[in-house]
Amino acid sequence: MSAGRGAARGLFVSFEGGDGAGKSTQLRRLAEALRAEGRDVVVTREPGGAPGAEEIRRLVLEGEPGRWSPVSELLLFNAARRDHVERTILPALARGAVVLCDRFADSTRVYQGAARDVAAAGPLPAPDLAMADALHALVIGIEPDLTLIFDIDPEVGLARGVARGGEELRFESLGLDFHRQVRARFRALAERFPDRCRVIDAGGEPDAVFARVRAALAERLAAA
Amino acid sequence: MSAGRGAARGLFVSFEGGDGAGKSTQLRRLAEALRAEGRDVVVTREPGGAPGAEEIRRLVLEGEPGRWSPVSELLLFNAARRDHVERTILPALARGAVVLCDRFADSTRVYQGAARDVAAAGPLPAPDLAMADALHALVIGIEPDLTLIFDIDPEVGLARGVARGGEELRFESLGLDFHRQVRARFRALAERFPDRCRVIDAGGEPDAVFARVRAALAERLAAA
Repeated sequence: MSAGRGAARGLFVSFEGGDGAGKSTQLRRLAEALRAEGRDVVVTREPGGAPGAEEIRRLVLEGEPGRWSPVSELLLFNAARRDHVERTILPALARGAVVLCDRFADSTRVYQGAARDVAAAGPLPAPDLAMADALHALVIGIEPDLTLIFDIDPEVGLARGVARGGEELRFESLGLDFHRQVRARFRALAERFPDRCRVIDAGGEPDAVFARVRAALAERLAAA
Repeated sequence: MSAGRGAARGLFVSFEGGDGAGKSTQLRRLAEALRAEGRDVVVTREPGGAPGAEEIRRLVLEGEPGRWSPVSELLLFNAARRDHVERTILPALARGAVVLCDRFADSTRVYQGAARDVAAAGPLPAPDLAMADALHALVIGIEPDLTLIFDIDPEVGLARGVARGGEELRFESLGLDFHRQVRARFRALAERFPDRCRVIDAGGEPDAVFARVRAALAERLAAA
């Protein structure tokens, strides 16, 4: 458990990485395995994970692109996160559960924390990683005990997306350069937060990836 | 115009104060008077004032009390404000309009910036005025050119509310002590930001109050 969390006794694990890396599949598999071992497991996701946060999720993800400016979006994600942490994550940790969360603050750092629309901001503060970091420190403050960063060559991730159908349209529309930048930003976060972040090679067969996930979790549990 | 606003040429006036002080009535009256003089006037309000911000307004103000924690609410208000500033206020100022805004960041400082539910926040940062100030500096940054703080004895304000009907129920339910604290907090803001804040004695006849509003505006225009 993190130093700042006080009485929380459980384990908070976030699953991060670009689309197509298979993190959601691995999350479900880990949840099943831990439950089979008799552990109390809470599976959740962001944005969302609590009733209010899910309403904010709809507000952010539905509607036209460009409906929200980057800073409004950053604030909405943090409003949802605060709700999620207060009402779902902390209560679960307090009773000793393992919380497996599909995306958390690192996704905000990567996707909302990239400097964008600086000219559009005019006299207002422009969105960048420093703003995302400062906002997180101001209103959230806590980090996961363990962050698994699913790392894969975007061309491989794209091929997987095509196999699954649906998601590949969004994936493809954003372009390979975008996904390469996302990968680089996640890797940079792993270097910045070495205590809690483990980069998981998400290439190869799902069984092989799952063995890496289990090894990272075992290492964390041994250190606790 | 404020130093930080760059090319904005108009005048940004916020109307602040507790309920029952008559600020919304005075705002409409000032808008009419300025338009009669041929000025471009934009009347707006918070939370809201832009399509996205109005959606956030509904999310915050509708539904059960306690639906949002104080920090989630603070973040939602700031998300709405950023949208409002970017999409309504700054474009209006850039074309030289006078923007009359019913409530702005000072209301957030007074209502959301009071330390509340500190125990409930647990290991998370607790909401207080310092958090509201830091958040404003981080994501909004600008202040009105002139803030009119409508000041009235809450007992007089309450009597007015009864005369109008409807609003007095909410007013009364919050209690006189609450309204006295709100009044004291607005007065403290006037002392903290003496350059832009003018306390308007909201007691007496509407014509007398309006004369005070016009005098404050004339003083600001003379100084510009």
